Amino acid sequence: MTDLASLKNQQIRLAARPVGMTTRENWQFTTEPVTEPAEGEVLVKTLYLSLDPAMRGWMNEGKSYIPPVGIGEVMRAGGIGKVVASRHAGFTPGDLVSGSLGVQEYKQFSAEEIKRSGLFRIDPRLGTPTQWLNVLGMPGMTGYFGLMDVGQPKPGETLVVSGAAGAVGQTVGQLAKIKGCRVVGIAGGPEKCAWVVQELGFDACIDYKNGDVREGLKTHCPDGVDIYFDNVGGEILDHVLARLRRKARIIICGAISQYNSTTAVEGPKNYLSLLVNRARMEGIVVFDYADRYPEAIAEMAQYLKDGRMKSREDVVVGLETFPETLVKLFTGGNFGKLVLQVASD
Amino acid sequence: MTDLASLKNQQIRLAARPVGMTTRENWQFTTEPVTEPAEGEVLVKTLYLSLDPAMRGWMNEGKSYIPPVGIGEVMRAGGIGKVVASRHAGFTPGDLVSGSLGVQEYKQFSAEEIKRSGLFRIDPRLGTPTQWLNVLGMPGMTGYFGLMDVGQPKPGETLVVSGAAGAVGQTVGQLAKIKGCRVVGIAGGPEKCAWVVQELGFDACIDYKNGDVREGLKTHCPDGVDIYFDNVGGEILDHVLARLRRKARIIICGAISQYNSTTAVEGPKNYLSLLVNRARMEGIVVFDYADRYPEAIAEMAQYLKDGRMKSREDVVVGLETFPETLVKLFTGGNFGKLVLQVASD
Repeated sequence: MTDLASLKNQQIRLAARPVGMTTRENWQFTTEPVTEPAEGEVLVKTLYLSLDPAMRGWMNEGKSYIPPVGIGEVMRAGGIGKVVASRHAGFTPGDLVSGSLGVQEYKQFSAEEIKRSGLFRIDPRLGTPTQWLNVLGMPGMTGYFGLMDVGQPKPGETLVVSGAAGAVGQTVGQLAKIKGCRVVGIAGGPEKCAWVVQELGFDACIDYKNGDVREGLKTHCPDGVDIYFDNVGGEILDHVLARLRRKARIIICGAISQYNSTTAVEGPKNYLSLLVNRARMEGIVVFDYADRYPEAIAEMAQYLKDGRMKSREDVVVGLETFPETLVKLFTGGNFGKLVLQVASD
Repeated sequence: MTDLASLKNQQIRLAARPVGMTTRENWQFTTEPVTEPAEGEVLVKTLYLSLDPAMRGWMNEGKSYIPPVGIGEVMRAGGIGKVVASRHAGFTPGDLVSGSLGVQEYKQFSAEEIKRSGLFRIDPRLGTPTQWLNVLGMPGMTGYFGLMDVGQPKPGETLVVSGAAGAVGQTVGQLAKIKGCRVVGIAGGPEKCAWVVQELGFDACIDYKNGDVREGLKTHCPDGVDIYFDNVGGEILDHVLARLRRKARIIICGAISQYNSTTAVEGPKNYLSLLVNRARMEGIVVFDYADRYPEAIAEMAQYLKDGRMKSREDVVVGLETFPETLVKLFTGGNFGKLVLQVASD
């Protein structure tokens, strides 16, 4: 058994709310001793942290779908860890677990946090730890329920997904292919585009960094778009709005193009296309589907196993790289689901 | 029987597509002889024409949910008329009918147009001719299906409707009250606001011309907005987006604030509220519900009869006033459903 008294917990806390892009000045590095869990508590060592666009929103003041991270608090992050000590009947040292670990090396889970389903054991036979942060984790669940519940894909329909090589995008595109759709991705750069077409089996991909999205949509969606899964917002949303088919569905999952903007968010000028085309634009928040994660995980794990679904994670090593690694999400610097490896075991 | 040979048909045709607000220069007045109907045809005399915001869209070039009116064509308009001659088994002189009469004194319906349900008899016991252009006509159908199908009102929910004193708005607000909602209107001027509250029974009304819509929404929707029926677009849509409740529904029916704009339509900056609130924004086009008009007409006629629904029409007399009368819609100059009386009998 680990000697807990010898351990130190390195943490990264929110020091100041960012204006525009985040910088090192927004963060404070602290170290705390690690303590023995009390009755009902579990001590978890962080292995991998999930870095997500939503984190940028949590850094802002003001009400959203969850409260912001407070100044001086450890930055919120989901992750995969290993139980190192447990005084809770549901967990044993060595268990691999998923939960809101925060950007730190160790996390003590209270009985209350565990009761609120804040920590659960993962089955390593269903996927690797990083897949549990990707296809089997929040991005996968977001893609699954956004597509299935709001998108309601039908065979033969045309789906467009932005951020196609990202965590949510890769799930959405592959799942839509499995459900019989024609799938067109939008991604930044020839490498990502080649990957989603050649490796993931998308029908086409538009490189927004080196081409005209409007023209690309004309070419690859000649009959229009039935489902648009939007991770980026901005002018790409407007281009897709201009090509909607009747009764189209737009899933608003995020707007990564807008998160670091210091000016007002740009509204979709072409929103009246919703009227002309009797179309729908709807937002989703994955936490609403928590009760149904098991069904989605089971289905997705099967696709991983039989090779119909692939996953790609971009793993960066070292807790201390967090400030710079997070920025990659907003510059398109990551290729696949961005994961921070904090420890290997 | 009327001597058809003695009749002249005055018409108003689209002379030029408008830039910004329509003016007299967009119109051309013509006169044609009236001819006997051929086999299968019906000749209708126009009594009342419906003037609607959608007409502005029909004057623009480019594809929308119906083709634009061509240059030189009689301007499209729905209306109520009287059959003056018929060689069709379904119609008898004296019948009151509803159909796409156009901005003219007489309309010859071909067998083909009648077959495509372009003309139908109205039952004067269910409502007056102008009510057949209002609550029992297109605006009423738009309000009914937009509210019931997309809005899906539940008792106790809060509904906001813009253009509250207009044709669609008055139907939506009263129907939502009947369905058990709290109803807050948005209208221009103290008279219209007083009317929707005192006469139609809305719970409150925000005067956008003499007050702060944002503050008004705070005051009158302290717990937020469940359903927003949007007839106006622009910044009012943004104000409501900022106050959505979880799982809110926005019905995009029109955007009258934008129809005469010479600059690009303004997109709703606050559209990401859809994400945070898992809300939906959906467009409707009334024609999609044509099969179901009879059920809606029956229900609404019952409300008119038992006094639970009132209607107000703003009737302007004289075909020749059409160019100026149409403009009233966009300046808020009408009070109630705008109707052009072309003949009284």
